[in-house]
Amino acid sequence: MKSTKIHEVGPRDGLQSESALVPLDVKIRWIEGLINSGIDIIQLGAFVNPKRVPQMAETEALFRYFMQPRRKPEGVTLSALVLNSKGLDRGLDVGVQMFCMGVSASETHSLKNTGMTPAEAQHEVLAMARRALLAGKRVQASVQSAFGCGYEGPIPSEAVLNLVKAYLNVGVRCISLADSAGHGIPPQVEDLFGAIRILDPAVDLACHFHNTYGLGLANSLAALKSGVSYFESSFGGLGGCPFTKVAAGNVSTEYLVHTLQRMGRRLDIDLAALIEVARQISEFFDRDLPSLILKAGSIVSFKGLPAKELQHETA
Amino acid sequence: MKSTKIHEVGPRDGLQSESALVPLDVKIRWIEGLINSGIDIIQLGAFVNPKRVPQMAETEALFRYFMQPRRKPEGVTLSALVLNSKGLDRGLDVGVQMFCMGVSASETHSLKNTGMTPAEAQHEVLAMARRALLAGKRVQASVQSAFGCGYEGPIPSEAVLNLVKAYLNVGVRCISLADSAGHGIPPQVEDLFGAIRILDPAVDLACHFHNTYGLGLANSLAALKSGVSYFESSFGGLGGCPFTKVAAGNVSTEYLVHTLQRMGRRLDIDLAALIEVARQISEFFDRDLPSLILKAGSIVSFKGLPAKELQHETA
Repeated sequence: MKSTKIHEVGPRDGLQSESALVPLDVKIRWIEGLINSGIDIIQLGAFVNPKRVPQMAETEALFRYFMQPRRKPEGVTLSALVLNSKGLDRGLDVGVQMFCMGVSASETHSLKNTGMTPAEAQHEVLAMARRALLAGKRVQASVQSAFGCGYEGPIPSEAVLNLVKAYLNVGVRCISLADSAGHGIPPQVEDLFGAIRILDPAVDLACHFHNTYGLGLANSLAALKSGVSYFESSFGGLGGCPFTKVAAGNVSTEYLVHTLQRMGRRLDIDLAALIEVARQISEFFDRDLPSLILKAGSIVSFKGLPAKELQHETA
Repeated sequence: MKSTKIHEVGPRDGLQSESALVPLDVKIRWIEGLINSGIDIIQLGAFVNPKRVPQMAETEALFRYFMQPRRKPEGVTLSALVLNSKGLDRGLDVGVQMFCMGVSASETHSLKNTGMTPAEAQHEVLAMARRALLAGKRVQASVQSAFGCGYEGPIPSEAVLNLVKAYLNVGVRCISLADSAGHGIPPQVEDLFGAIRILDPAVDLACHFHNTYGLGLANSLAALKSGVSYFESSFGGLGGCPFTKVAAGNVSTEYLVHTLQRMGRRLDIDLAALIEVARQISEFFDRDLPSLILKAGSIVSFKGLPAKELQHETA
């Protein structure tokens, strides 16, 4: 059984969907909270056009800050999203440890998000993946809109799997399927990840779900069952690509970690620290977040019982 | 395979958790919308103390209205919640078709909700179940707080199963497990329903999930897998017992029906009609509801594709 890793994308996917800009020092405080919680990978931002997505303008500054000696433990990986080779150059300059890149399987979503058709984006992304791998970086390549698109409706599995094959062919060892619009349902999740497993039984699998139709956690559990080991989620359940129709927030990190802990996994993560970060974010934006756990509190703190006594044994 | 039935509890569980009182004519309009959608069972209200729960004061009036000839199709069942024999008398007087009753497996929740210990409540409920069955009524008996309690934490499976055995012994043929506080997780759902199936392979199973920790739909899908055929849900995702700690809303009916339809089930239900009811409710309370589908729209309407083309075949 592969271990279960949490990839926090809140500083990128969460904050890019907010109109309010978060000052650098506030972002740093939240990210420090995430680091202290013990989660595995944190996506600090995206190297995109700051005029188009001003919320991501300080991505370089964040990497310069956190890549200084003693600013983070060894075990934490800092990732960034890159859309094109210019972004990759910027990321290589500031020492990004893991590059996340992707192509949308939906033509409309691809054009709105990157200005490129899926074929053009694939060409760009494969070239970037090669360069990042040659530079010794971890690379995760994703298929966006893999489970359906708000503009186009259903997406054929073949389109998804052809992209995956192209990623495998250039040596990418971590493949992510992103449900950018939130259309996925559990049996579809099991089928698509199962098909990738057949293509390459050893590749690392990652998932990225949005909650438009309430199925974010159900789909995450289906992914867990399908051998996915990297789970992308966002603090407070924030998130949503500005160029995707009807996306809702990402799966919330607190919900995801809570669920895993109730199932006996990742009891090393400090859920209370994650809830505290989400509380600060809720306070900053002055509104309730999709993640109700902020109101309910962590179930593992009842009567001071240790998490162990509240887990449910699972096969 | 048992068929999948929707039991809408919004007019009861949804509205009892709202401080604003809904006028009778408005409730009637919403319930007419639910009836027209083609769902199976609608819980019109609860026969409880109107001073304690004023939102339920017009339950008799609703039954008098809808039990008139030609006010509803044959296939729709109207249910009500009863807590004690006085409530049962009131329900029998106005022709309730299906009585829902339950005992909390949590002592604290039971005392706060009914003023009775679980043992006292069990005595009362078993007597009510016998009377309602003798009167020729459908009876559903539930174990509340079956998956954990906001006050007490974990609830031993034995407490749940002992209550179920008592229900079966008096002839109840529909057993519901209610996750009143929203603490359930999918493997626990499968275990508990599986244990009841072993006690009685033919009994009808029902589930009632709250969404406190984001797992409402994931738990519903686990219940579906475990042979549960009656699914309780609430319009717009409203709901929450006023006497349960940290409960969040119920699973939303629109989300549930959407999920089932994507999996090829219950394509006869008019999801757009359900979304329209939830829209009216959102307008009445002048706020967004937990159910994001109101904003996203039904996925089955994309480009006018019929639902059939958007379902995902499942085993």
